[in-house]
Amino acid sequence: MQAEIICIGDELLIGQTINTNAAWLGERFSAMGIRVQRAITISDNRQEIIRAMDESGARSSIVVITGGLGPTKDDITKTTLCEYFSTHLVMNDEAATRIAQFFSERGLPMLEANIQQAALPASCTVIQNFRGTACGMWFERNEVVYIAMPGVPYEMQSMMENEVFEKLRLRFERPVIMHRTILTIGIGESNMAEIIADWENSLSAVGISLAYLPSPGSVKLRMSIYIGDSAEQEQVLNTKEEELNALIGDYVYGRDKETLQSIVGKLLLNIGASLSVAESCTGGKISHLLTTVPGSSKYFKGSIVSYFNAIKEQELGISSVLIEKHNVVSREVAEAMAMAVRNKFRTEFGLSTTGIAGPLGETAEIPVGSVWVAVAGPGGVKSKLFRFGKNRELNIDMASNAALNELRKEILAT
Amino acid sequence: MQAEIICIGDELLIGQTINTNAAWLGERFSAMGIRVQRAITISDNRQEIIRAMDESGARSSIVVITGGLGPTKDDITKTTLCEYFSTHLVMNDEAATRIAQFFSERGLPMLEANIQQAALPASCTVIQNFRGTACGMWFERNEVVYIAMPGVPYEMQSMMENEVFEKLRLRFERPVIMHRTILTIGIGESNMAEIIADWENSLSAVGISLAYLPSPGSVKLRMSIYIGDSAEQEQVLNTKEEELNALIGDYVYGRDKETLQSIVGKLLLNIGASLSVAESCTGGKISHLLTTVPGSSKYFKGSIVSYFNAIKEQELGISSVLIEKHNVVSREVAEAMAMAVRNKFRTEFGLSTTGIAGPLGETAEIPVGSVWVAVAGPGGVKSKLFRFGKNRELNIDMASNAALNELRKEILAT
Repeated sequence: MQAEIICIGDELLIGQTINTNAAWLGERFSAMGIRVQRAITISDNRQEIIRAMDESGARSSIVVITGGLGPTKDDITKTTLCEYFSTHLVMNDEAATRIAQFFSERGLPMLEANIQQAALPASCTVIQNFRGTACGMWFERNEVVYIAMPGVPYEMQSMMENEVFEKLRLRFERPVIMHRTILTIGIGESNMAEIIADWENSLSAVGISLAYLPSPGSVKLRMSIYIGDSAEQEQVLNTKEEELNALIGDYVYGRDKETLQSIVGKLLLNIGASLSVAESCTGGKISHLLTTVPGSSKYFKGSIVSYFNAIKEQELGISSVLIEKHNVVSREVAEAMAMAVRNKFRTEFGLSTTGIAGPLGETAEIPVGSVWVAVAGPGGVKSKLFRFGKNRELNIDMASNAALNELRKEILAT
Repeated sequence: MQAEIICIGDELLIGQTINTNAAWLGERFSAMGIRVQRAITISDNRQEIIRAMDESGARSSIVVITGGLGPTKDDITKTTLCEYFSTHLVMNDEAATRIAQFFSERGLPMLEANIQQAALPASCTVIQNFRGTACGMWFERNEVVYIAMPGVPYEMQSMMENEVFEKLRLRFERPVIMHRTILTIGIGESNMAEIIADWENSLSAVGISLAYLPSPGSVKLRMSIYIGDSAEQEQVLNTKEEELNALIGDYVYGRDKETLQSIVGKLLLNIGASLSVAESCTGGKISHLLTTVPGSSKYFKGSIVSYFNAIKEQELGISSVLIEKHNVVSREVAEAMAMAVRNKFRTEFGLSTTGIAGPLGETAEIPVGSVWVAVAGPGGVKSKLFRFGKNRELNIDMASNAALNELRKEILAT
């Protein structure tokens, strides 16, 4: 079973927008056992769209098209699809009602161009969009399914997940694949590959394929197996996961769709504990990650982002003497910050960071990318120095994840 | 003048790696006046590579191929190119010396597979790689230039910038394209299209093409023009930008690569003012955005993230009486928070948010997505209510951007 992805949009070709839709679709299709054999990006041009659909439809059973469904003049995908499938636009009542509701809920005026978004090709199955105004469209011709989706990632993603993937599963019967993804932090890809080489070699004999999914500071390992007898195959995955944990368990923090912040949240809820954070170099990113989790207001009391040293002194009582003696990027300052915010906010755990995200602020002893993380808890305070790279945004991300991981380990040890 | 980009790599198709090479190349080509008409992603497969090169070479004068040049078995681009251009591998002395040096400098052992990377097609012009071991290759056939590059972004980028773009400029004489992107917030795409309809219709007469680039809460308008007499065409863009500002200037916050946080930073630096933030529903996101800007430590003193009401009372002096009387999501609480953090941190400006990001916490009067933003400054305090949607992460993002925009307007008015 093969699919192709056609992304429509001048903004992609001139590099104004990085194409994340192709990667997202590729990952989901791959997880369903559908091979994406090509991803094509073209401009908002009638002839280009028709040519790409001809080519992809001749090679693959599934063609997903994204983009060009907005209400403005440069969005020509819908009329081109009408022409391609020899059909015409008819008003879709459900879409019209939904679009009207979309505007009334937001107190915004609805324009003629928006109403026209509910006019859809007569021969397609309409995929409703509950996060925006552009509907999706499902066409079939010569055993090929063509699916047109809006280009806005979160609209496209929710429509695919709520409706399209399930329709594809029903339309094309295929062996089910079971995946299990093991999430690790703090070990590089090649180092890990060396440690788990024998384990990796043992997988094919039991029908498991493995993928390394590296990202800055973290490597995910995805095992995939075709399901015959589901219970039996799940047991095979369990056994291999246990073997893996025996090798690299120190670096494993979770599984599948978990995140460090969702795991930390669950652990805190389990023991009825609360958390506060004192952030310097991470500048609010840890607090942001924690509060992306729904219900985080049950355990996360709040933070102090102390970007100026004067704020460290005023809000956290970190004296200028301590900073002068040890440097602001030091074990002593990190530990004092974690203990101070824990005391002040009266939480079971206090987490802190102090470091140099870069590009400015480097000294001879403390290079850009140096970050101290401290965790204060019922059992006292612990701290650790990390050395990341030269890229500011990456340093902030990696320091935030490292801090959440240190917190996770400390909660587990408590 | 048209180019096509062929990216080779299974990791791109299964979504393990987001394709940033296509966007980077697209941006550079577009700035040179070369239109990228297609970007194609295919797997490491001989037949796929040949088919894609046939197709792209028939349509475009420049074909850039990235990926598949590594030393391992799955990297087959080089041998496929030999076959395609009916040539054979010969050892390139300069590359051999450079690769040997690459390993000796790093104290790493050089393997046979690495030495073989210096064996390159006899009929190509070799593009040396000073950041890695895989050379680039430049072929010409039937007036089409084919350029093969390694897939590692920073290797590819430096080779293109040091050598390839200049070779292309000499090889093809072309008109240059100039772009200008106007950034707006707070107005929907269709509403904007209606307001600027006449202006939009006037563009083609002066040779400008327009694209709408919408994202949640924000619309970017990109004007593009072919440059003949550069000064004259820039004047045309300036005139059209002024006309646009007269129509929707209230919603325009910046231009081209600017962001709300970079603009706020520049404005604060200009007037020598500092900033503090009190975040509730945005949970640290505003502080995070501010601190993604290098040098933000010059004006951003810090924040209080008061997720629990008790922290609002303790850190910001927001009394439980005020909260009970007006609700925590209210003008009164937002304004009190902004004033309190401004006073406490002794900054010229204080910014605050209080709202319901969702999915929990909704009440009859205050639906999910309601957010109050307040800005306290030298001229007093101002506040505004926003109503976003039902998606938690999107509400956090949109509230953070709305708050930065209110701050921007207030600084400008001061």
